[in-house]
Amino acid sequence: MHLDRLKQQIRFVIEIDKLKRVVRQTILMDRSRLENDAEHSWHLAIMAMLLSEYAAENNIDLFRVIKMVLVHDLVEIDAGDTYCYDEEAIEDQMKREEEAADRIFNMLPEDQSKEIRLLWDEFNDRKTPEARFAAALDRLQPLLHNYNTDGMMWKKNGIKSNQVISRNKPIEEGAPTLWDYAAGLIGDAVRKGFLAQ
Amino acid sequence: MHLDRLKQQIRFVIEIDKLKRVVRQTILMDRSRLENDAEHSWHLAIMAMLLSEYAAENNIDLFRVIKMVLVHDLVEIDAGDTYCYDEEAIEDQMKREEEAADRIFNMLPEDQSKEIRLLWDEFNDRKTPEARFAAALDRLQPLLHNYNTDGMMWKKNGIKSNQVISRNKPIEEGAPTLWDYAAGLIGDAVRKGFLAQ
Repeated sequence: MHLDRLKQQIRFVIEIDKLKRVVRQTILMDRSRLENDAEHSWHLAIMAMLLSEYAAENNIDLFRVIKMVLVHDLVEIDAGDTYCYDEEAIEDQMKREEEAADRIFNMLPEDQSKEIRLLWDEFNDRKTPEARFAAALDRLQPLLHNYNTDGMMWKKNGIKSNQVISRNKPIEEGAPTLWDYAAGLIGDAVRKGFLAQ
Repeated sequence: MHLDRLKQQIRFVIEIDKLKRVVRQTILMDRSRLENDAEHSWHLAIMAMLLSEYAAENNIDLFRVIKMVLVHDLVEIDAGDTYCYDEEAIEDQMKREEEAADRIFNMLPEDQSKEIRLLWDEFNDRKTPEARFAAALDRLQPLLHNYNTDGMMWKKNGIKSNQVISRNKPIEEGAPTLWDYAAGLIGDAVRKGFLAQ
């Protein structure tokens, strides 16, 4: 029994509880409160299970997609959630998140720290079909929330349709059918007045 | 493009947002509020990724474990969270959850409804090494929360050590090393006064 190794792993399990306190600019479907990163990550993992048939490439490694979405926001424990339409915050986002990755992932035994880091890098680089599909889900999920709450957070943050289109267009690379669907929602949101032209 | 199929899947994705509102009898590590089922499921999925080396049997299908923990609490959208020490509520828990499974899983296209149902049944039956490992994580996670918050929810609910031991003993079947670790925490919790003898 490698008790030191287990203790190190348990310390990490305890540390990442903090992700439940990182609040996003997405409101729950019932509009009761903002969503946090842990809930968001769980939602993406289930979406990956159910929507993989729409991935741009056949036979993607769905297990790796799910692992990627489960860990993709862990760095926000230190770096905080960066709102995708906050251009100032996006500027130093990578630097803040790299530092966070160094601290948080290095709490794990070296083999596991490397594994999580590889998954996180793959997600950010969007060079594999798996990462592009994961990124598509990461965009589609908040869009579903915005559409189904009559654009509440779009309105609150003064977001316009061209911003939403350019944020969500990468869905097409990862899952073309989901992009067609998303583009339909965006158009409909403008028509219904949920989203400013 | 099977638009009806996709619409059915998206309706399910929207429906399960409700899991974020199902509150458990576990307090976050920072004691700020109770945990919800979506956060709990995410936490278990990461624990599965990191702790699979302690599973009772070698070469378990970790992907299936992760899918099981991601969906294991979905029925609580209708059935509510049943506190594991509430003996009255446990009596009709299975009936409530079976009805919930019928409604919620059947929102999906038939192939996916069956897949999720099989995962949920496997989790509940605890007959496979994967299900026993998943069940071990489902017990260890709240124990970590209780231990690291000085037994706050144990005290609030008047829970005693024999109840905690009998609730957590099945960890041994799924992950013997994790049971040794858990038993150590329980003993220590009693010594420190976090848990009544």
